[in-house]
Amino acid sequence: MKQFSFKVIKEDKDTCARLGELVTPHGVIHTPVFMPVGTQATVKTMTGQDLEILGVEIILCNTFHLYLRPGIELIEKAGGLHSFMNWHHPILTDSGGYQIFSLSQLREVKEEGVCFYSHLDGGEHLLTPKKVIQLQIQLGSDIIMPLDECIGAQASTEETEAALRRTLNWAGESVEYFKTFAQDKQVLFGIIQGGKSIYLRKRALEEMKKLNFFGYAIGGLSVGEGKEIMYSILKFLSGELPADTPRYLMGVGTPEDILAGVENGVDMFDCVYPTRVARTGTLITWKGKINLKNKEYAYNFSPPDPNCSCYCCRHHSLAYLRHLLLADEILAPRLLTYHNLFFMLEFMAEIKRAIKKGNFLEFKNKFLSNKL
Amino acid sequence: MKQFSFKVIKEDKDTCARLGELVTPHGVIHTPVFMPVGTQATVKTMTGQDLEILGVEIILCNTFHLYLRPGIELIEKAGGLHSFMNWHHPILTDSGGYQIFSLSQLREVKEEGVCFYSHLDGGEHLLTPKKVIQLQIQLGSDIIMPLDECIGAQASTEETEAALRRTLNWAGESVEYFKTFAQDKQVLFGIIQGGKSIYLRKRALEEMKKLNFFGYAIGGLSVGEGKEIMYSILKFLSGELPADTPRYLMGVGTPEDILAGVENGVDMFDCVYPTRVARTGTLITWKGKINLKNKEYAYNFSPPDPNCSCYCCRHHSLAYLRHLLLADEILAPRLLTYHNLFFMLEFMAEIKRAIKKGNFLEFKNKFLSNKL
Repeated sequence: MKQFSFKVIKEDKDTCARLGELVTPHGVIHTPVFMPVGTQATVKTMTGQDLEILGVEIILCNTFHLYLRPGIELIEKAGGLHSFMNWHHPILTDSGGYQIFSLSQLREVKEEGVCFYSHLDGGEHLLTPKKVIQLQIQLGSDIIMPLDECIGAQASTEETEAALRRTLNWAGESVEYFKTFAQDKQVLFGIIQGGKSIYLRKRALEEMKKLNFFGYAIGGLSVGEGKEIMYSILKFLSGELPADTPRYLMGVGTPEDILAGVENGVDMFDCVYPTRVARTGTLITWKGKINLKNKEYAYNFSPPDPNCSCYCCRHHSLAYLRHLLLADEILAPRLLTYHNLFFMLEFMAEIKRAIKKGNFLEFKNKFLSNKL
Repeated sequence: MKQFSFKVIKEDKDTCARLGELVTPHGVIHTPVFMPVGTQATVKTMTGQDLEILGVEIILCNTFHLYLRPGIELIEKAGGLHSFMNWHHPILTDSGGYQIFSLSQLREVKEEGVCFYSHLDGGEHLLTPKKVIQLQIQLGSDIIMPLDECIGAQASTEETEAALRRTLNWAGESVEYFKTFAQDKQVLFGIIQGGKSIYLRKRALEEMKKLNFFGYAIGGLSVGEGKEIMYSILKFLSGELPADTPRYLMGVGTPEDILAGVENGVDMFDCVYPTRVARTGTLITWKGKINLKNKEYAYNFSPPDPNCSCYCCRHHSLAYLRHLLLADEILAPRLLTYHNLFFMLEFMAEIKRAIKKGNFLEFKNKFLSNKL
């Protein structure tokens, strides 16, 4: 029996938005989906039970972080990542390409891989395309990503081109190496890089399509290039990516960017945004963001969002949450994370309902003009 | 109808241990009871739902901390402490006497009260016996405590005597002032001080009994005086405290000290111990303490306590919990706090079962010799 499959259930008539079903050995994912980020084998502050109650269908963990701590060998001995963290629903692991470039100092990009020093203890490491595949096979995550080279929005065309060349070479090596394991418990996605250039994105796309990946990720966006460039690349890719494969927009994002992604046929999203801002006191609601540090909430005994039915909004007031935050109580990030994830899941559910009903564009416009 | 009552349900034949029922407007408390500490209107890392699932019947909050942040007026405007934190079971508030002496610098003890500077912003405050009663009436906690003067184990007899004299005067003022409110939603406990001296403890007891408190707290123990002195004072008081009133041993404690308290007729306990050590990586189990920082647990894929049925032990391994702790993940203190409170509640339940069965002493001896 085939353990993985993807099918488009419905296509929007006005846009490239679509409903899909991604079947994995650990469960079915209904797309468009938002994947909460559990970098270090935990979605910060949340238990697995919380995520199940929230209705989370897939989470993202990070190969780079887990490789440095606690080590992949330890996780393999625990029976793989699902067993280690006791999360028996789908997991996607990021290759760590992004983290090598954002966290590591003194890194050196070679043709065969990336040499870097750990941000934890300064130890020297070399990650090659093969090694990154090997590590993710040891982790046993459902969806795995090849090593790629991420560049910032400030990179020159030459730098972007050189990085793309390496990324394409590495993708080829990754596919070849992954094939040698001949197992059906994991699938590999290809990552489309190419920076701000439509020309390079097109080249990346053509080369990657030749490798017949199960799914395609769009990398190197939302890294400071600006909305206009990001949306134009999404639009270009929406017409060119194979229609019958899942499409994943990496590291995105905010509700606004997710709407742009969905409109351009993206099926999967991940971002630290809802969980990260929760830890600094920001609640995401249908009426906009609430920064609890703001004095105006000190005596506000209403819930953050009176229409929200999450545990946090059903039980607690802005005044109480603000007190917890200012008193450095762990319950503040915990409750805020729960609320923000609840919002994101609800937001994705509304997107799915709108596509189903055939009024996605109406929903998008209402949301952006704050008229829901 | 009387909103508060206390009755002894069963007395142990071999010791002063007893089962009791303490009825409050917010629910019935089955004694001996352990009260988790929620200093800042939150039991650190836990939601109210967690506490309900754990079977917590009463928590302790701290008047001193809440007075400084977020302020009592704010909590009163929220409808009182129960509403503010959305915990609709019993709450006991500590007067803050202990915190004034442990946290504040530059404090000055006067006959009329204590003048101190806030540890948060350095602001100057004067707390008098009346003010402390007033604050707790505004909070609306079920059981309230009068201002007392805590002294360390190093205090001289003269210092202890002077502190006791003030504590007794303040107790009288507190009772008089509390009476003027003529309400039946709260009860006031008296606090027996007197340091290490049986003579002073006896005097404290006699004077306090004259004031006819609803319950009596034993203060100023477990502050460095040593087990022998602590147990001898407990033994002395066990024969002298009114049998039909609840007895509360403040700030205690560890399972060992709770057993000594129960043996000497104590009904109520509170301590930061299980929640505080959780945050530094210690699990309390029936087989002793586990310090997760210990390397030996790195590859241990068994639960902390295979016989424990708490969420943490049913779902997670020592290796995973250790990873969370070393990676500074909030889920570590959260899961460890949950386990440690589960243990304490289970421990108190076992004590109650043993008293009911008439084998408390056997239970105590088996626990202390690690033979359960």
